[in-house]
Amino acid sequence: MSLETLSTNKSFGGVQGVYKHESAETGTAMTFAVFVPDHAPGEKLPELFYLSGLTCTHANVLDKGESRAACAEQKIIFVAPDTSPRGEGVPDDAEGKYDFGLGAGFYVDATQEPFAANYRMRSYIEKELPEIIAANFPVDMDRQGITGHSMGGHGALTIALRNAGRFKSVSAFSPIVAPSQVPWGEKALGGYLGADKAAWAQHDAVALIEAGARVPALLVDQGDADNFLAEQLKTHLLEDACAKAGQPATIRMQPGYDHSYYFISTFMAEHVRWHGERLK
Amino acid sequence: MSLETLSTNKSFGGVQGVYKHESAETGTAMTFAVFVPDHAPGEKLPELFYLSGLTCTHANVLDKGESRAACAEQKIIFVAPDTSPRGEGVPDDAEGKYDFGLGAGFYVDATQEPFAANYRMRSYIEKELPEIIAANFPVDMDRQGITGHSMGGHGALTIALRNAGRFKSVSAFSPIVAPSQVPWGEKALGGYLGADKAAWAQHDAVALIEAGARVPALLVDQGDADNFLAEQLKTHLLEDACAKAGQPATIRMQPGYDHSYYFISTFMAEHVRWHGERLK
Repeated sequence: MSLETLSTNKSFGGVQGVYKHESAETGTAMTFAVFVPDHAPGEKLPELFYLSGLTCTHANVLDKGESRAACAEQKIIFVAPDTSPRGEGVPDDAEGKYDFGLGAGFYVDATQEPFAANYRMRSYIEKELPEIIAANFPVDMDRQGITGHSMGGHGALTIALRNAGRFKSVSAFSPIVAPSQVPWGEKALGGYLGADKAAWAQHDAVALIEAGARVPALLVDQGDADNFLAEQLKTHLLEDACAKAGQPATIRMQPGYDHSYYFISTFMAEHVRWHGERLK
Repeated sequence: MSLETLSTNKSFGGVQGVYKHESAETGTAMTFAVFVPDHAPGEKLPELFYLSGLTCTHANVLDKGESRAACAEQKIIFVAPDTSPRGEGVPDDAEGKYDFGLGAGFYVDATQEPFAANYRMRSYIEKELPEIIAANFPVDMDRQGITGHSMGGHGALTIALRNAGRFKSVSAFSPIVAPSQVPWGEKALGGYLGADKAAWAQHDAVALIEAGARVPALLVDQGDADNFLAEQLKTHLLEDACAKAGQPATIRMQPGYDHSYYFISTFMAEHVRWHGERLK
């Protein structure tokens, strides 16, 4: 598996790189960003996966996430993949909307045509990308954390819940906590997985917790001025599910904050340090 | 003078806003960004002007500068203007290159046609914008600092050197220190001010220092892996001029860093805190 280096820049004492490879899962070229802090020769560092939200590529958090200072301080490798396959022949939303298709892979393996061939973001994030990271960067695969924003918060929560023991820490910014119950999720899970809702439960954090899945530690920040809170995010469903299931969770409503990177960047350093404590 | 609010977002406990107004100086609509940290009612805060480099608008440092955390901590208002007039009828570089015209105002008042009517970035930054800031934001105009990157570092240095006593602190990231002696500067100063180099000296930090201008405190960071260092930036000319003139200056070569926002963001918090100490 060959990795093409698109760019490297020194930043906060480490190296921010952007890389491209041909993905066996998606059948397309995939681009991702990795920040490697300064470290001793031979030293292996913990890694934090950051899954982005609707419309994003690897570049949004790279430019606006303000994660590098805290990752340098905590000596954490920060990995930011794309949100869908892209390129010629990759099918998009029939109406060209932002909430399905390109930039909106929802971290599932599609079973429905014409999406099944390329839209394999679950396997890409759960299997292929970690192998590439392990083979090419100085990571300690026994110390993995995962986080994400919005659709990526959904991805982080569901991937951690389905892979018990793999992630020592999971956090999210403004996550879609119960896609089966909200318009974004109904469109995406229906479109990628079909109408049978039984197939959706593996991709719904609230449903997974209700079915018994657990994570060791969970931190969620949500802005209370977020335009998507009431209709798409429904943070209270996660609070209720964690409370009922006895899943330890810190879920914080942040007054005045919206859904943007102005919010994410404000709390990014705190999340990175929270992961850092659990990845030591 | 009416100010249109394009956006406001809560960030790091304060408000990041983007504003637009009709500029009397440039004859165009001008957009700028202002971050106002959380503060007590009636409290007046110091401000730091950040002048951007070639090709930038107000948005580059807004997205990639990572200034807000430190500005919130130091309680400094951060003001980021555009780099040139823009809009229909504003003349651009004859060949459409990035280093003259739109995005490349060089912080001078043009005397040459067809640029003289709109390209009045010196007066815009020195006079009009500070008046707008004073009238619309909770600033203490007795506590002003200025900084900038590349062409904007040139702007920060020359504006501070020409306005003795106004800025308590001036810093720069990878500044063009002697535009009269480098290709970017020769093209811009020649194009805006004409061939007579006597008119250029007021817009050349090294020439101003040699002619006796001084600032109270000066901090410069420059990456030694910056592709523009040898031909366009020539930091050593500023070091020599400060040493000869007895101008106190901290000028640091930062190993491995390039000309990008990966470099700027790495040292932004340090610059903001350095200004903060001098603006208390």
